[in-house]
Amino acid sequence: MLAKLPGLGPRSARRAALHLLKRRDSVMAPLARLLDEAAAAVTTCSVCGTLDSTDPCAVCADPGRDTTQICVVEEVGDLWALERAGAFKGRYHVLGGVLSALDGIGPEELNIARLVARAGEDGCREVILALSATVDGQTTAHYIAERLASLGVSVTRLAHGVPVGGELDYLDDGTLSAALRARRPV
Amino acid sequence: MLAKLPGLGPRSARRAALHLLKRRDSVMAPLARLLDEAAAAVTTCSVCGTLDSTDPCAVCADPGRDTTQICVVEEVGDLWALERAGAFKGRYHVLGGVLSALDGIGPEELNIARLVARAGEDGCREVILALSATVDGQTTAHYIAERLASLGVSVTRLAHGVPVGGELDYLDDGTLSAALRARRPV
Repeated sequence: MLAKLPGLGPRSARRAALHLLKRRDSVMAPLARLLDEAAAAVTTCSVCGTLDSTDPCAVCADPGRDTTQICVVEEVGDLWALERAGAFKGRYHVLGGVLSALDGIGPEELNIARLVARAGEDGCREVILALSATVDGQTTAHYIAERLASLGVSVTRLAHGVPVGGELDYLDDGTLSAALRARRPV
Repeated sequence: MLAKLPGLGPRSARRAALHLLKRRDSVMAPLARLLDEAAAAVTTCSVCGTLDSTDPCAVCADPGRDTTQICVVEEVGDLWALERAGAFKGRYHVLGGVLSALDGIGPEELNIARLVARAGEDGCREVILALSATVDGQTTAHYIAERLASLGVSVTRLAHGVPVGGELDYLDDGTLSAALRARRPV
């Protein structure tokens, strides 16, 4: 079972299992109890689709957050990344993945219908598509933008360009071209 | 001498030297001749400061390039990266580094005076600062923008944001914040 976790292969899973077995009282029992508690407590937010111990989640329930903006992310990990950066004060919507013909992921497999409903509610003014700059991510962004086109909300996407700390010589051609096209006044 | 090349340590330099010595006729002599020829032929372009076998360089001498735009880069390698991307059709200016108080690099050590002169010439309308998104790179960009402020040319910088192919979860906080601030309509 441990070998099925992402980042663990059969060999490292055996090492982890042995590590646990040697520390049955100090590590293994507390870990088992915590996993059990977390599995029972964590639920999917019925508003945005993130994982939290409350429903609605802490972000959706927070009256201090800007309700005019919805930031659409692929996975819960992306929501955590944006919260870590502290750059966004609105609410989120977790798709649960991206459209992928190859993996058979269509619009029905993603949390898109609920997003369209939320974007159509009173008070929503902007939907920010914070999806990966990959082919599947951008396909999904265009699909969602089309679905939202008739609602009268503004649909935006993250800027593409040079990452902070990035040196030109190490960047790929696509990023360089995008950064040059989207250049801004100093 | 080989060990002084970037990317080679004493051990790999010894390996490279042995490799050459074993192939004196097929590799070592031709390499020596090419290095000799290149050292004699390559010169610094008196217009933009890049390295080429002609002066002015091939880009500066090309009548098909847009003369209204000057793209400022740190090093010749950055110019090559932008040419590889094929995204820019104007001319370049190579600074030869960035301002760095720590390394004692001031404005006089860089090719800045020549840039101010070029930007002041008739026909120049935009200076694009394609410098690294590092602290030194941005300090240099601001210094140059101030020096050019009175000339009436527009001064722009590359966009910051998500690199093409980038996934949100792997980005640093600064890039995420910049990408969110500079978001654009889909």
